[in-house]
Amino acid sequence: MTDEATAFVPGHVTGFFSAHPDENPAIAGSRGAGVTLTDGVRVTVRRDERGDDGGTTESDPRTGEAARRVSPAIVTLNGERVRVDPVGGVLDALGVDEGRVSVAAETPLPVGAGFGVSGAVALGVAFGANVLFGRGRSENELVTVAHRAEVEAGTGLGDVVAQARGGLPIRLDPGAPGHGALDGIPERPRVEYVTFGELSTAAVLSGDTTALTAAGESALGDLREEPTASRMVALSRRFAHEAGLLTDRVADAIDDVRAAGGDASMAMLGETVFAFGTGLSDAGYDPAVCDVHTAGAGLLPEE
Amino acid sequence: MTDEATAFVPGHVTGFFSAHPDENPAIAGSRGAGVTLTDGVRVTVRRDERGDDGGTTESDPRTGEAARRVSPAIVTLNGERVRVDPVGGVLDALGVDEGRVSVAAETPLPVGAGFGVSGAVALGVAFGANVLFGRGRSENELVTVAHRAEVEAGTGLGDVVAQARGGLPIRLDPGAPGHGALDGIPERPRVEYVTFGELSTAAVLSGDTTALTAAGESALGDLREEPTASRMVALSRRFAHEAGLLTDRVADAIDDVRAAGGDASMAMLGETVFAFGTGLSDAGYDPAVCDVHTAGAGLLPEE
Repeated sequence: MTDEATAFVPGHVTGFFSAHPDENPAIAGSRGAGVTLTDGVRVTVRRDERGDDGGTTESDPRTGEAARRVSPAIVTLNGERVRVDPVGGVLDALGVDEGRVSVAAETPLPVGAGFGVSGAVALGVAFGANVLFGRGRSENELVTVAHRAEVEAGTGLGDVVAQARGGLPIRLDPGAPGHGALDGIPERPRVEYVTFGELSTAAVLSGDTTALTAAGESALGDLREEPTASRMVALSRRFAHEAGLLTDRVADAIDDVRAAGGDASMAMLGETVFAFGTGLSDAGYDPAVCDVHTAGAGLLPEE
Repeated sequence: MTDEATAFVPGHVTGFFSAHPDENPAIAGSRGAGVTLTDGVRVTVRRDERGDDGGTTESDPRTGEAARRVSPAIVTLNGERVRVDPVGGVLDALGVDEGRVSVAAETPLPVGAGFGVSGAVALGVAFGANVLFGRGRSENELVTVAHRAEVEAGTGLGDVVAQARGGLPIRLDPGAPGHGALDGIPERPRVEYVTFGELSTAAVLSGDTTALTAAGESALGDLREEPTASRMVALSRRFAHEAGLLTDRVADAIDDVRAAGGDASMAMLGETVFAFGTGLSDAGYDPAVCDVHTAGAGLLPEE
């Protein structure tokens, strides 16, 4: 029996989307298109019987016994202790007491800037805890567990299913495996991105999403006519404009890339601009550079 | 405009399956489970306007003009010219005249021994021709094209959809994307295999598959109860026995692996034995060794 398991989950930038809430979090989700990245999150789940993970212990007022440890979904992310809300839901769904594990995540991606880091941690914890505690779930079941937890936490609607697939995912129908449906763009371009700051996914998703969803549905229909990477960026740019989500800094950077002969758009949701090929560097920016991740999330071999 | 495009398609070994024929080749397929391999097929499609690909030219008897080149799906496989039947169907579905392309495939895998080489070539040609001739198809559409061509050629029922997915695919429902459904085992074991000879997939699939399909359905139900790699091998072994497909050489090798404390089964369909971990080498064999391929089929970057 091993004491830890590590999964890699690619980052995911959504270019455009429509929101499809539902009372059942496995059916809720988004339609749209995005890019999975070789820049991702490495998530290690460790067995931690002593429970020294920062959780607190509730005691039963009648017996005085320590009853159940309660941990507010705290993980170590790049060495700092942060709260990643969906993690609690994932562990709960797998029947793993939060006091029995510690979670450490490492990523080069900015947090809160539209790269799906919370979904990645949730999915990585699902893969890791499943093998560590012998839960015997299938990949679809683990994706469902993470998707539900992300929807219930309000931190995302479509990152998890896209990160489980890899490539340039098109979310044809919302929801977890068995409800949703995915396709992909058969290209593997180089990716560049720059981040200016954070935006709150929860704040946008909890507001009026009518205009956003109409723009997203329109972009999806047009992408399906010709599913290419260049069209995906152009439709994402149209969506960001129509949905009223562009910030000044993002709009300026997109204009700069276009002036240099390229194309770029905005990550949903963060103050992040992404481009394929050399769009941002041609425009004089100093972007982070990575590739499209060809595979979906998965366990890494034991070291 | 580039003059060639190269795709990589993982090899695929089916451990057990049930056959589900249908008049519509997109609905026909198999259920079952298998392993995709980092040993795969690299397929290069080249634009070849002169048509010097070994095809013959039919002339119109009324006008005497060369009307349409007819090529019997000839590809170069590891330097030898061989016939790969589904390739003609793939090019036809994409509206590409066979006289306009040449196809070269390279693989370390044995041909006709249960590694899905024909499906891999079909899928690789679909990805390559799509980008080379700007056909603008999605990944699901390309998988559908290759799956249909493979079913129509009678060379396979489930390799293409598994090779498009990667990992340890479970075929829950038969057929191309939109009809079929897939899941996966969330493990990435090392793979060993030895091959003693060929078996004809077409001969088995064209015979009475009643007992085989009953055994395959039973194995699938049991695997879904606990989708782990070790259980997949054990259920594959039970299937090969129940379906009456074991040859003496394959049965002996499986016995040897079990005597050495491991487990192994037979590739469907070839005289091939596969094991996870070090099962075959522990039993004194000198197997080929590779890993589970984490990604599905896809284009390789231009060199």
